[in-house]
Amino acid sequence: MARGSAYTRLEQRFHRLSLIDQALGILGWDMAAMMPPGGAASRGEQMATLKALAHEILTATEVKPLLDAAEDEDLDDWARANLHEMRRDWVHAAAVPSRLVEDLSRASSACETVWRKARAASDFAMVAAPLGELLGLTRKIAEIKGQTLGLSPYDALLDQYEPGGTSAAIDVVFDDLSDFLPGFLDQVLARQGPAPERPTGPFPIDRQRELGLRMMAVLGFDFDHGRLDVSQHPFCGGTPDDIRITTRYDENDFIKSLLSVLHETGHALYERGLPPAWRTQPVGRARGMSVHESQSLLMEMQACRSREFFTFAAPLIADVLGTAGQAGWEPETLQALTVRVTPDFIRTDADEVTYPAHVILRYRLEKALIAGDLEVGDIPAAWNEGMVSLLGIRPPDDRRGCLQDLHWYDGAFGYFPTYTLGAMTAAQLFDAAQKAQPDLLLSIGRGDFAPLVGWLRTNVHAKASSLSTDDLLIAATGRPLDSEVFKNHLRRRYLA
Amino acid sequence: MARGSAYTRLEQRFHRLSLIDQALGILGWDMAAMMPPGGAASRGEQMATLKALAHEILTATEVKPLLDAAEDEDLDDWARANLHEMRRDWVHAAAVPSRLVEDLSRASSACETVWRKARAASDFAMVAAPLGELLGLTRKIAEIKGQTLGLSPYDALLDQYEPGGTSAAIDVVFDDLSDFLPGFLDQVLARQGPAPERPTGPFPIDRQRELGLRMMAVLGFDFDHGRLDVSQHPFCGGTPDDIRITTRYDENDFIKSLLSVLHETGHALYERGLPPAWRTQPVGRARGMSVHESQSLLMEMQACRSREFFTFAAPLIADVLGTAGQAGWEPETLQALTVRVTPDFIRTDADEVTYPAHVILRYRLEKALIAGDLEVGDIPAAWNEGMVSLLGIRPPDDRRGCLQDLHWYDGAFGYFPTYTLGAMTAAQLFDAAQKAQPDLLLSIGRGDFAPLVGWLRTNVHAKASSLSTDDLLIAATGRPLDSEVFKNHLRRRYLA
Repeated sequence: MARGSAYTRLEQRFHRLSLIDQALGILGWDMAAMMPPGGAASRGEQMATLKALAHEILTATEVKPLLDAAEDEDLDDWARANLHEMRRDWVHAAAVPSRLVEDLSRASSACETVWRKARAASDFAMVAAPLGELLGLTRKIAEIKGQTLGLSPYDALLDQYEPGGTSAAIDVVFDDLSDFLPGFLDQVLARQGPAPERPTGPFPIDRQRELGLRMMAVLGFDFDHGRLDVSQHPFCGGTPDDIRITTRYDENDFIKSLLSVLHETGHALYERGLPPAWRTQPVGRARGMSVHESQSLLMEMQACRSREFFTFAAPLIADVLGTAGQAGWEPETLQALTVRVTPDFIRTDADEVTYPAHVILRYRLEKALIAGDLEVGDIPAAWNEGMVSLLGIRPPDDRRGCLQDLHWYDGAFGYFPTYTLGAMTAAQLFDAAQKAQPDLLLSIGRGDFAPLVGWLRTNVHAKASSLSTDDLLIAATGRPLDSEVFKNHLRRRYLA
Repeated sequence: MARGSAYTRLEQRFHRLSLIDQALGILGWDMAAMMPPGGAASRGEQMATLKALAHEILTATEVKPLLDAAEDEDLDDWARANLHEMRRDWVHAAAVPSRLVEDLSRASSACETVWRKARAASDFAMVAAPLGELLGLTRKIAEIKGQTLGLSPYDALLDQYEPGGTSAAIDVVFDDLSDFLPGFLDQVLARQGPAPERPTGPFPIDRQRELGLRMMAVLGFDFDHGRLDVSQHPFCGGTPDDIRITTRYDENDFIKSLLSVLHETGHALYERGLPPAWRTQPVGRARGMSVHESQSLLMEMQACRSREFFTFAAPLIADVLGTAGQAGWEPETLQALTVRVTPDFIRTDADEVTYPAHVILRYRLEKALIAGDLEVGDIPAAWNEGMVSLLGIRPPDDRRGCLQDLHWYDGAFGYFPTYTLGAMTAAQLFDAAQKAQPDLLLSIGRGDFAPLVGWLRTNVHAKASSLSTDDLLIAATGRPLDSEVFKNHLRRRYLA
């Protein structure tokens, strides 16, 4: 395994970049989970400084010649894939003039600030102008990156979150899903009986936290390399050697926090399972947002909303919450609560069946926005029509419509599809894992996640970014992303 | 207030350096207070990377010409003082070849690792060789820095922690103290009666934490800009806008934790009181370690071990700990517990009277070690003889003798004197504050710290590094450091 000097020098540079990025991971976690409010301004400056330093290191004039020289060096497969990821990072960082990047950063901050007020007032018109400016800059950047990458402007944005993803491929699976979902939803709604009664609290927060920790341990979370804390929005942060997941607690509803812990633990297991030898190189990172989301949704949706899981979990939950022997805590009741389908306006509260509709709507709108086929002023009407066509409900106001999600107002165009790509990928991976290990659900029913996590370690986590998303999925499941598997999962769970 | 371009460019560079340093402040706090053990290796790499980046920014070839050019620019007093501090930073960073700095860093890590084992085994011989290597490198660096700074080798090390400090000046006050203390100690021991009975616990940790938070609020800690957490050794970290203090709890002894919270709050108030306009410039930093320690000891020793403080605090303590009405919780009893004098072997457990003896011993030994008048093999004997001469007790083993403190084994020579310089400075500042505001102790007796903190803000905190330590003390108290004030404080408290 010979490695020439250009490649070695790149490895040293990206090692340093990775460590700055790790520092940012901890600072970002702290900001959300620990920082007192008065620390916000200086934390913003600290993080901007580290990001600027990283940008300078990544776009220094010597990088391009090194990337070119390393192409001709004798590299093994992982080093070759690493070089590919290095170039990806460099292209995204170097393609756009820094002036434009700074303009975008300022416009994002300005728009986000106005959005918070507009959402509170449920008044889209308030934020239309700053969103227009942000969209204009985003279109420019998408154009430039697209030219550099040989992609359409929208695909260039998508590539930031979903390397190698294309709207052509997404259209195929999303169109199939959007044909399928309305009819399927009608069937589910017609079939599902009255909602089971929710267990009533209060469920003390320290008990809910204990339950979260117990479940994390069951799934295989390594507390020598991670923590569970509280933040306003649950997330998985930190670094692969020091994974920080968060949740939030509602004294009257332990299920929400429990499911969020299971979800974030899926993310955490992925990060922790990345190959240690490549920890600080681009190829050693998680593959992209759809694969990342597949790991959280595989745990939360596929494994832990199953009947088998609740067979194991229900007694443990009752034990930790001190409700053993009470009515309403049977495995069947608890599981039924987690697979209840209810079309509603808010994406983040959506169930597994209606969630894709929320995502498909946003994907189609943002694609049109970037292409120039939709203008900012048209968003509210287009949003509400889309909701009627996909879910059969019309948002009564913008707060419950096009103002609900931060993404666009923060400049994150191209992110939304990864949620549903992740859900479909999760179904396909879980299906393959079950085929490889027919006892998988039985193991989960005993609280034994080792077979599942072992399969994921080998087939997903340990691959890191050495394969493209498509190739990773083909190697693990025998085929590229196939909406049929997700649809079959929904049919089995909701109509069987 | 004209500021030429060289100075302005330096300000930009040091602004960036300060933000990297702030990031390190949060990462360091996290390491001690939050990080799971498995995160240690990567955290070490993250912090080393940020330190290396900062070192490169500070020692870049353009810095020296900018420093020289800025000298000729028209600067106001603060900018001039800022330039002085910039040069100090640069000299310390640039004087020593990076090869030597790296060797020192490696030797420190190696020695510290062996020291942990040697201390556990109470066997100095185990660590003699790595300490010898570390000392050799430290002598070399002290020699080089001394030549650059025009100082003796030891003073060059001292200057890292105590800018402008000299052993000539320290010798004067320490010699005076070491003449005074043995006789004074005999008088105190002869005079003090039997120890009052300590309140027995258990004192639940959540109650102790609540007590700490209440006391921090009384002293003026701003929770919008700071936190209280737990770590193995209490410290004050974070940044001026986001101050993180820590303590540790012993269920059987609430006093230790309480005093450590009061101590760290003193440090925190100093950091928080530094002038916001100079937040990210060298002149805006705390003056040095002796002034920093004076702020913690002023709170802990001067203000909060007073009878007046306990008049206010005793009912609050009893209220929070739920012991109201029980015997042994009178103000007099609690105060007596905090001013009990007992010669013993361990510095960190020492009382106010014997603490300086521990420091003077270490100062004399480390000065001799750097000068080459003492060799590593001679340390245990010299230590034990010093303990006999200063405190009249002989350590029964090295664990309770020369192996007890991390400092030397981590390469920190020149730090120890700042503890006792801080104690003396605290006495002198508190004395001046009382003269300026004769009701000061009465206010403290009502739990009103505003007059004291206001005086410190104006006379110490707001000055930051705009004055030398000497000038700061002269401006605040009318004279340079004077051991007589400290001695008078001890006489009043322990013999009156």
